[in-house]
Amino acid sequence: MIQASDVKWSKAEKKVAQGAFDKAHERELNALMAEVRERGGAIAAPEDMWRLHDFLSAKRHDIDGKYDYRYSNLIFVFARLVREGWLQLDELDGLDADKRTKVGALARM
Amino acid sequence: MIQASDVKWSKAEKKVAQGAFDKAHERELNALMAEVRERGGAIAAPEDMWRLHDFLSAKRHDIDGKYDYRYSNLIFVFARLVREGWLQLDELDGLDADKRTKVGALARM
Repeated sequence: MIQASDVKWSKAEKKVAQGAFDKAHERELNALMAEVRERGGAIAAPEDMWRLHDFLSAKRHDIDGKYDYRYSNLIFVFARLVREGWLQLDELDGLDADKRTKVGALARM
Repeated sequence: MIQASDVKWSKAEKKVAQGAFDKAHERELNALMAEVRERGGAIAAPEDMWRLHDFLSAKRHDIDGKYDYRYSNLIFVFARLVREGWLQLDELDGLDADKRTKVGALARM
């Protein structure tokens, strides 16, 4: 259920949300870059290269879809980022209690 | 103009053609692997990674289309490989003179 508290974001909450979103994005990209550097540097056969290409295609599509900064969707985005380990729940301190509770509950689903 | 000599390949010619084709393919893949290893290892920003992905998408499409081993098409494939430097004309020694002349002429176009 979408409730008023999900839709209304105060100025202070928006600042927390944007910071957490950017931090998670940066972490995931840094992890991906490290993996691509490692896999790229270890290419020994054409199959390794095509597998790296397939991997990058999938990751790019996944990341493009995941980091969708619309306030109507942000609770779900944060829940996924917490579930995947790109964000800690306490990095959302500053959002109202109702939003944090929802993110936490959705992250455990 | 497609002439009989383009279409008919003797057993000996087929062996030369397959060897030259495989050699060029191997060279191009080796060069590409070296470039991907280097670019992959040097990724410092997300943009570098997405550019590498775009580059690999284009190269994969290009290579998939280029290495088309049908005898009806092989004169054109060889001409392109010579033009691009993946094959030397003298590696086609053993094909009849008419085929070699055509490959050489098309390669200079």
